[in-house]
Amino acid sequence: MVEEASNKQVILKDYVKGFPKESDLILKTSIVKLKIPNQCSNDAVLVKNLYLSCDPYMRGRMAKTEGSYIDSFTPGSTITGYGVAKIVDSSNPDLKKGDLIWGLTGWEEYSLIKLTQGLFKIQNADLPLSYYTGILGMPGHTAYIGFYEICSPKKGEYVFVSAASGAVGQLVGQFAKLFGCYVVGSAGSKDKVDLLKNKFGFDDAFNYKEEPNLDAALKRYFPNGIDIYFENVGGKMFDAVLLNMRVNGRIAVCGMISQYNLENPEEGTRNLLCLITKRIRMEGFLVFDHYGLYPKFLEMVVPLVKQGKITYVEDVAQGLENAPNALVGLFSGRNVGKQVVVVASE
Amino acid sequence: MVEEASNKQVILKDYVKGFPKESDLILKTSIVKLKIPNQCSNDAVLVKNLYLSCDPYMRGRMAKTEGSYIDSFTPGSTITGYGVAKIVDSSNPDLKKGDLIWGLTGWEEYSLIKLTQGLFKIQNADLPLSYYTGILGMPGHTAYIGFYEICSPKKGEYVFVSAASGAVGQLVGQFAKLFGCYVVGSAGSKDKVDLLKNKFGFDDAFNYKEEPNLDAALKRYFPNGIDIYFENVGGKMFDAVLLNMRVNGRIAVCGMISQYNLENPEEGTRNLLCLITKRIRMEGFLVFDHYGLYPKFLEMVVPLVKQGKITYVEDVAQGLENAPNALVGLFSGRNVGKQVVVVASE
Repeated sequence: MVEEASNKQVILKDYVKGFPKESDLILKTSIVKLKIPNQCSNDAVLVKNLYLSCDPYMRGRMAKTEGSYIDSFTPGSTITGYGVAKIVDSSNPDLKKGDLIWGLTGWEEYSLIKLTQGLFKIQNADLPLSYYTGILGMPGHTAYIGFYEICSPKKGEYVFVSAASGAVGQLVGQFAKLFGCYVVGSAGSKDKVDLLKNKFGFDDAFNYKEEPNLDAALKRYFPNGIDIYFENVGGKMFDAVLLNMRVNGRIAVCGMISQYNLENPEEGTRNLLCLITKRIRMEGFLVFDHYGLYPKFLEMVVPLVKQGKITYVEDVAQGLENAPNALVGLFSGRNVGKQVVVVASE
Repeated sequence: MVEEASNKQVILKDYVKGFPKESDLILKTSIVKLKIPNQCSNDAVLVKNLYLSCDPYMRGRMAKTEGSYIDSFTPGSTITGYGVAKIVDSSNPDLKKGDLIWGLTGWEEYSLIKLTQGLFKIQNADLPLSYYTGILGMPGHTAYIGFYEICSPKKGEYVFVSAASGAVGQLVGQFAKLFGCYVVGSAGSKDKVDLLKNKFGFDDAFNYKEEPNLDAALKRYFPNGIDIYFENVGGKMFDAVLLNMRVNGRIAVCGMISQYNLENPEEGTRNLLCLITKRIRMEGFLVFDHYGLYPKFLEMVVPLVKQGKITYVEDVAQGLENAPNALVGLFSGRNVGKQVVVVASE
């Protein structure tokens, strides 16, 4: 007799337009058998999900899109995302019952993952496991690739990070400081700005919501201009940054969260001519293309975390029932730090 | 007694807003002494101008700008630009009377150039001298740098060039064909489209003015998408191109002529999110930064021109009195091919 368990799941009601609402996601409970079905391949795992990651890119998957780098969610089905999980049953000899992994899993208590190729086995289980949704997982690797590989930083350069207290931004700022750059971040509340200055060691930070003129704000924080912009937000901020870039500046385009919920952006970017006059290189990237460098990233970041040279702030929601609210909160910037959902504590 | 000559000059009346008009430039005649004044440094030349180059970047110099890569013209003074000239008098031992040079000179019959650093001595005088305002000069070098250095082309890639019959575009297309790429160009008249297909050997070409939906047009010409976009125009075309780029595409931003005359661009760019989803690298460049590669460029291009493997089309205006009209015509796309002004025939 195969053991069974109750399985709470987060389902996408229908494709989303505009800002996602909590009610776009519904909770459902089903029953799951805690064993890999016989008909499954010899490369499947059944996992118990421990932590789920709320990430801005998930907004794109809530809409009906075609030909994107990642599929849309299916209305009526459980959504998926990055998470940390413990293996309950496995048909892959490299992944054993009790092993911890991180990678794409379901927003539910138990998931059957039919292809294990994209999963990473967790080696450093002495660090908080939730960190594998953030600093040691996809967002951390994103910050690493974006800053070191895409921005080609030089010591002493002026770096600006938007959405700087977020899962990626807080690390980019700390990497840049460790590298010897001057770093300013923007965020959307006083608390976040305090965090940037007092906890993450940014040289300075400002609340973009209190700046009627972003161009003037950037000129105040960067009187000599910006060498590197780590772009997380898009929109008006991007336009203002273009005016303040230095010659031979670099822009890593990681995200444009201000644009994700707009059906028809009210205003487009107007200052692209600066790309020529200032000879700017601007490059979009997706961390998925760079997982070959993940071991190198861990080699650098794990000691830094252990030595306390990098800190990481999480905003933790308890329980799958709070997951829809946590995810939706990303798009109004309600989270302070990396938004995580605790599904179960091991 | 120092010989004197009459010197016709093209003067900027005042800073220009919006589309430049012929009347923004006025003609004046003064008297010039055909000898370098005693008080001039030991690095000056007095030249007789033969050919002047009409280039889109000159629009920026007609406006009052600060901190740009190149100074504004001075209202009331002779404008300057690239040209081909013959040396009449010289205080630099490397440049002798009778030598031919190209570089920044005045829009007038005779110019005193007080710093010769930016001048290039013409070695291949067996090719048409006017070519040093185009294929063998700044625009040719721009096409070379933009295509080979900025676009990182690979054989078999799909290349799109806007303003493709212009001074730079016609060369980019021919370089790309010689390199083994598939090349489509856009231009603004039937004549220009014919030129692209029949004279320059583009694989295909279209008149953007006859395309109500540029996205649909690009999908027709590039069903598999665009690997390399050589950007000369900006605006709506750029936005449509973003939607049609392939993963890991590259965009060399050479110019955005559709934007130069707009005080307040009506519409900005809305599709920049494609930079992320398609991992696009976009890079603005100025040829001035790359003159170290000019000898390498000539080494490649001179034989190609001599062997007839590259052709070049010029639109020639006769006499300085027609220079204002020729320059202004660039911005309505009246020129077919590189716009040159003949000041004197040697």
